Amino acid sequence: MTRANVSSAGEGVPLQVPARETLLADYRAVRAASNLLCEPLQTDDYTLQSIVQTSPPKWHLAHVSWFFETFLLSDYLPGYRPLDHRYRYLFNSYYEQVGPFHPRARRGMLSRPTVEEIYRYRSWVDERMAELIAGVDARHWPEVARRIAIGLNHEQQHQELLLTDIKHNFSVNPLYPAYREELPRGTGSAAALHWHEFENGLGGIGAGDEGFAYDNERPRHTVYVGAFRLASRLVTNGEYLAFIEECGYARPELWLSDGWTAVQREQWQAPLYWLREGGEWRQFTLAGVRALDEQEPVAHISYYEADAYARWAGHRLPTEQEWELAATHREISGNLRDSGRLHPCAGEEDGLQQLFGDVWEWTASPYGPYPGYRAAAGALGEYNGKFMCNQMVLRGGSCVTPADHIRPTYRNFFYPHERWQFSGLRLAEEHG
Amino acid sequence: MTRANVSSAGEGVPLQVPARETLLADYRAVRAASNLLCEPLQTDDYTLQSIVQTSPPKWHLAHVSWFFETFLLSDYLPGYRPLDHRYRYLFNSYYEQVGPFHPRARRGMLSRPTVEEIYRYRSWVDERMAELIAGVDARHWPEVARRIAIGLNHEQQHQELLLTDIKHNFSVNPLYPAYREELPRGTGSAAALHWHEFENGLGGIGAGDEGFAYDNERPRHTVYVGAFRLASRLVTNGEYLAFIEECGYARPELWLSDGWTAVQREQWQAPLYWLREGGEWRQFTLAGVRALDEQEPVAHISYYEADAYARWAGHRLPTEQEWELAATHREISGNLRDSGRLHPCAGEEDGLQQLFGDVWEWTASPYGPYPGYRAAAGALGEYNGKFMCNQMVLRGGSCVTPADHIRPTYRNFFYPHERWQFSGLRLAEEHG
Amino acid sequence: MTRANVSSAGEGVPLQVPARETLLADYRAVRAASNLLCEPLQTDDYTLQSIVQTSPPKWHLAHVSWFFETFLLSDYLPGYRPLDHRYRYLFNSYYEQVGPFHPRARRGMLSRPTVEEIYRYRSWVDERMAELIAGVDARHWPEVARRIAIGLNHEQQHQELLLTDIKHNFSVNPLYPAYREELPRGTGSAAALHWHEFENGLGGIGAGDEGFAYDNERPRHTVYVGAFRLASRLVTNGEYLAFIEECGYARPELWLSDGWTAVQREQWQAPLYWLREGGEWRQFTLAGVRALDEQEPVAHISYYEADAYARWAGHRLPTEQEWELAATHREISGNLRDSGRLHPCAGEEDGLQQLFGDVWEWTASPYGPYPGYRAAAGALGEYNGKFMCNQMVLRGGSCVTPADHIRPTYRNFFYPHERWQFSGLRLAEEHG
Amino acid sequence: MTRANVSSAGEGVPLQVPARETLLADYRAVRAASNLLCEPLQTDDYTLQSIVQTSPPKWHLAHVSWFFETFLLSDYLPGYRPLDHRYRYLFNSYYEQVGPFHPRARRGMLSRPTVEEIYRYRSWVDERMAELIAGVDARHWPEVARRIAIGLNHEQQHQELLLTDIKHNFSVNPLYPAYREELPRGTGSAAALHWHEFENGLGGIGAGDEGFAYDNERPRHTVYVGAFRLASRLVTNGEYLAFIEECGYARPELWLSDGWTAVQREQWQAPLYWLREGGEWRQFTLAGVRALDEQEPVAHISYYEADAYARWAGHRLPTEQEWELAATHREISGNLRDSGRLHPCAGEEDGLQQLFGDVWEWTASPYGPYPGYRAAAGALGEYNGKFMCNQMVLRGGSCVTPADHIRPTYRNFFYPHERWQFSGLRLAEEHG
Repeated sequence: MTRANVSSAGEGVPLQVPARETLLADYRAVRAASNLLCEPLQTDDYTLQSIVQTSPPKWHLAHVSWFFETFLLSDYLPGYRPLDHRYRYLFNSYYEQVGPFHPRARRGMLSRPTVEEIYRYRSWVDERMAELIAGVDARHWPEVARRIAIGLNHEQQHQELLLTDIKHNFSVNPLYPAYREELPRGTGSAAALHWHEFENGLGGIGAGDEGFAYDNERPRHTVYVGAFRLASRLVTNGEYLAFIEECGYARPELWLSDGWTAVQREQWQAPLYWLREGGEWRQFTLAGVRALDEQEPVAHISYYEADAYARWAGHRLPTEQEWELAATHREISGNLRDSGRLHPCAGEEDGLQQLFGDVWEWTASPYGPYPGYRAAAGALGEYNGKFMCNQMVLRGGSCVTPADHIRPTYRNFFYPHERWQFSGLRLAEEHG
Repeated sequence: MTRANVSSAGEGVPLQVPARETLLADYRAVRAASNLLCEPLQTDDYTLQSIVQTSPPKWHLAHVSWFFETFLLSDYLPGYRPLDHRYRYLFNSYYEQVGPFHPRARRGMLSRPTVEEIYRYRSWVDERMAELIAGVDARHWPEVARRIAIGLNHEQQHQELLLTDIKHNFSVNPLYPAYREELPRGTGSAAALHWHEFENGLGGIGAGDEGFAYDNERPRHTVYVGAFRLASRLVTNGEYLAFIEECGYARPELWLSDGWTAVQREQWQAPLYWLREGGEWRQFTLAGVRALDEQEPVAHISYYEADAYARWAGHRLPTEQEWELAATHREISGNLRDSGRLHPCAGEEDGLQQLFGDVWEWTASPYGPYPGYRAAAGALGEYNGKFMCNQMVLRGGSCVTPADHIRPTYRNFFYPHERWQFSGLRLAEEHG
Repeated sequence: MTRANVSSAGEGVPLQVPARETLLADYRAVRAASNLLCEPLQTDDYTLQSIVQTSPPKWHLAHVSWFFETFLLSDYLPGYRPLDHRYRYLFNSYYEQVGPFHPRARRGMLSRPTVEEIYRYRSWVDERMAELIAGVDARHWPEVARRIAIGLNHEQQHQELLLTDIKHNFSVNPLYPAYREELPRGTGSAAALHWHEFENGLGGIGAGDEGFAYDNERPRHTVYVGAFRLASRLVTNGEYLAFIEECGYARPELWLSDGWTAVQREQWQAPLYWLREGGEWRQFTLAGVRALDEQEPVAHISYYEADAYARWAGHRLPTEQEWELAATHREISGNLRDSGRLHPCAGEEDGLQQLFGDVWEWTASPYGPYPGYRAAAGALGEYNGKFMCNQMVLRGGSCVTPADHIRPTYRNFFYPHERWQFSGLRLAEEHG
Repeated sequence: MTRANVSSAGEGVPLQVPARETLLADYRAVRAASNLLCEPLQTDDYTLQSIVQTSPPKWHLAHVSWFFETFLLSDYLPGYRPLDHRYRYLFNSYYEQVGPFHPRARRGMLSRPTVEEIYRYRSWVDERMAELIAGVDARHWPEVARRIAIGLNHEQQHQELLLTDIKHNFSVNPLYPAYREELPRGTGSAAALHWHEFENGLGGIGAGDEGFAYDNERPRHTVYVGAFRLASRLVTNGEYLAFIEECGYARPELWLSDGWTAVQREQWQAPLYWLREGGEWRQFTLAGVRALDEQEPVAHISYYEADAYARWAGHRLPTEQEWELAATHREISGNLRDSGRLHPCAGEEDGLQQLFGDVWEWTASPYGPYPGYRAAAGALGEYNGKFMCNQMVLRGGSCVTPADHIRPTYRNFFYPHERWQFSGLRLAEEHG
């Protein structure tokens, strides 16, 4: 699929506005992908919210439709009347400027609207979006196209969340249901770890004016970065197991203070989804419980665990600038959602690998605004900017990220204690 | 339906053991009633647990089947193999002696087994129960019959909970779904309130040896009760409204200390399910939101509210002994589930009315053991006895109680802050 | 000391009004006793509040003075002006009708007024109380005398709390300070346990019109009680140890459901203040840490533990009616505060012993109003009535109860999970 | 006072090792200053802990002595035996590698050791420290001197905390006690706000090898900073009042998401210590409650409030790099503790002012390690490094910071929701 190139809000005039038919095709492709991801679900599975961070699958399906309804149809489709005006409240996630919203922690309380009604809502929105794309006045088209691009990227983010949330929802069920009975598995071994060196100097960070990027990737700006080395691949389950076996979870000197508090409060002994059964480590996956594969990258660890592992190993996490400088100009390929594995797999290649896909890589960088960042005006300005505190940046996408959604400048962010994403780590160190 | 008369555990030899075909018919009737109650539900509705006190409908349906499986099939059907051995854990409610159980607060996390699988489980149990009833050795029949009687009464209790829990589950949804679009409504007026006098003296309380009763209704014993008066009917919404309008919820001197704490913590301003819209009081019911009917008995109040109302009115709540002495020998009729209203209705009659049905009546009596009470040995002994602390007794059944489930000696019990049951009050006072 | 006999509020005309000089002597004696109890404290100890249930010693000293100021001086001493009008807020415990009050949980936040200022406040109140007693108009004297009697009993209750709260405050300090370095200790052995039989029949319960009693002990009324047996003495540490050693804290079938929840949440393994050091049980006391004496009555257990122990032992707790019928007409003597031990001691006597003193005895009776009880009007009516829910009755006083404060009809009450009082148990059972 | 210049741990060989008599004089001066700060306290005030962040004054006094005992006396004074071995546990703050410690939240539970005993402990440590300084072997002197320098800076930090914690402790008392009855007050007006421009380019950040600095200020390193402007003075109460009056606390679009959550949860309406009385704003200070002075810098605001104010004002907070580049080479003078005001005062000067003193300035920079940072080995390495997550950097010291304790490279850090420090803000913006 070719992603329409539209620059994001507040970034000056878009250089290229996509053709209507191109964007409509994109729209249909992204929307269809969401539905397809839900095919393995039973109706029973659609309403569950296992923790406050996850959302019920049907809420995701509705919310991404609400996004198009709120930011496109209401503003640009003449005479638009919503299917149900109460959805404005129910399916608003956090846009204060749109109005009050259903509390995030209570999304799992919505047995109605039913799954069937949610799919009807999706179709309703799709029909009117097609109408809008075909008929909107030409002078509005650039802005409409810009917003659609945001809406499609937004829906792709929720596609990733659909998978991570379904995984978590299923994991709290003692029956450990499988999302897919069979998923293709890697059988390879992780390559030996090498260090890739980067010299000190000035570098450019962030997205330029062309192409789609979120506002948090802009403006592009100059940074000075000291010389550093980056590990050729991700840390594996086997390597992480050594940390566990050397009592990593019981040695406070390895941990950040807040991390140690989390270890004790949550009684962490291993990554999320690791199960100890009869002396063997097993792991809950989207294909159910499997034996732990030591060659695979470690996943579902918090920032605190990534940081403690790195300290134990005598290294550190890379900053997001270091990561981006290493990733720029590299081909975006890897074990992304399109591989169909939906699980990280061993990095078998020589050279600097696994930058994209497998697991999001925790960086040492707190999530904040780039110099000169200014959030867009209005509710869409709440998309990224208001979260620039208390979270850490992750880079590179995961095995459940759509391949056409990730890029070197992409900044994901989660709280340092969160583990339900496919999150892992790559080591770094100073040099010279 | 004729309820089989079997005396409960620990109460000596049952006087009458029912015929197998009678009990099988009872079994089928009770089981069918549970399924019927769920007919208005969508698949989406079956997994929801709005608060820790409520259970998902499908959990209720499974748990009552688990009860038969655990206490009948496993013990008495030769060679019985469970459909799924994991259900022993999932659908155990609180029987410590059966083994560990899924935490109550997490029943809403079970999207699997699916609704379809739960109904299959019910059929599986039903088939084997029929086999057991037909084939069990005659020397086991009395005990098997005794346990089946408990199982059927147990399922009837859960039928009531199905309705109160569905009501609560729906009430937390801003869409306020209706369980039934149309329910028959009363249009009458509440009769004027009269006082019925009872003399002081010795009385017999509790169930005798004959007929089914829970162990908490036994042994029958003597009490001395002073002279008292009992109100002829339940307190109405209109009367309760006067309490609200005279600032009842803002006057600490009317409340028990723990009640006042609850009022402030929970910000109570009115009974549960009352809604204030545009200057009008409305009420959420199983048929959706309706105008508040001042003639109907007030429902969904906590013990604290019942107690505060009574103090404000210059009276008090009856003790459970007073209530039982007044109710003994009276015909069991009233607005019970069989009326199909599923909502309290105005008490239009002369004389002492509404003792059975409409709403459970909070009494002034903490729930405790009768003199000489001893819980049965084994897991079935956990049914009632271990709850004899911190709860208050309610009497008389409600509009969602099956008519053949209630009796004058029946003791229901809830924590004093709980409001999701159909709970209301009747006034009493000393005299003489 | 001769306690002035004045009947409590709402109980009709007092039969005997004490002479002014008698009451003044009583007043001075009680007030001096409070000061004396605090002599072993350092200034540092006066402000501490270890848990919400305990109060800082200086708050106790001030609050009991506030009581006289609020209910006597303000109402009856002409032209009375408070020493500091802010004390009305600071030292009100829970009298809603007096006005807003400093939150109970934050009493430990009051480093000011200083200890010195609090003692000055006490002297100020004492001087004016002397003035009031000498000078109040004769027609007010009966009511003034009645309120002073309540005030003195109130202060005696806080004297007991001073000791139990100091004990708890000190227990949370890893240094385990001693309130008194040396306290006289018993060295005797507990007598063998006998059962005392009581026949069934009608009995009179509660305080009559004469003599001081709290309103919750009235009105005296008739009850029917079945035949029962009462253990001749309290359960000992040694007996309780057997319960622990037979895994009493790990067997849910012995516990009330709420009790089992408490055991797990609080990780109870033994009574409060028991310490396991190097394979030996030790016990924190008001004289610091001592070896556990198996002959002494078990103390500092919750209702849940008392109930579980009784069930394990094959008996039950007595009801408060049974206890009172057994205690009526017996001499009030025992290991009360006046013995100076401030710790329970072995019951060495033959016959029914330890009814008074040593430890408060948990009864099986929830705390509620007697038939015909009505709380007094006004703020003083909040003294007892509003707590008549969720608590259990304890009888008989403890080793820190003043001897002239206890009586057979006295009803103490605490929540079933509370352990910081000197609370223990005596066994009972049905018979005949 | 001349601060001994000793470079911190892990920073290579110290260039200058101070003379023993110089360091002893420093030691005595710092220790005496702590005692002096406590002179206005009553014994009652020493044990209080109002919130988990604050510590009781006597705990501060003991902990800083423990620091010398643990890191100097135990390691370097031959045959040293502690005064009380239990203090090792009681007064360890958070050094996991020293051993277990008394929980931070329970420091206010320690009525013992008494204030008198704590002062005795201080003298005991002082005597032995004098002995150590005089007698330690010459080959150990550099390391001993290095550690003493850390210990003295540590004690100065706790001197600041003594004042901020006493202020908070007193603020939760409805009597609002004053730490000092009279404190000198400014009467001036804040100068008009100007913008100071700084060009883009490379700069050096952090402390070099000479002089004392904490390890978190090192290593010195190069950064690239874009052009920016910095406000000439701090934001005033009057300016902040305009934010309040324009409903700043009720407009979610001005707030970070986590900040908005805090506003709602904590019900913030104004800075900490602001009181609204009869239509007037007043402010609790170390001299008790005063009228709010609009010319003074706003203080006791969280990062969230600083950030929201800046957004409302159309500007932003400076980064710590911007602040440091502006502050380097400037004279360290301002309203620091030595002025004796203990309260911020109006910035009356022309030019870039108030960089040091008055209030700590929240920066936009999350607290993290500088490139190449490595915590020292052993327990002293826990001093700073393990807190490098979830906190924000503040710069410049406050009106309760000792003048010889602050420097341009000094990095303070608190959680973004914390308000009990003297924390305020200065505006910044991009330019060019």
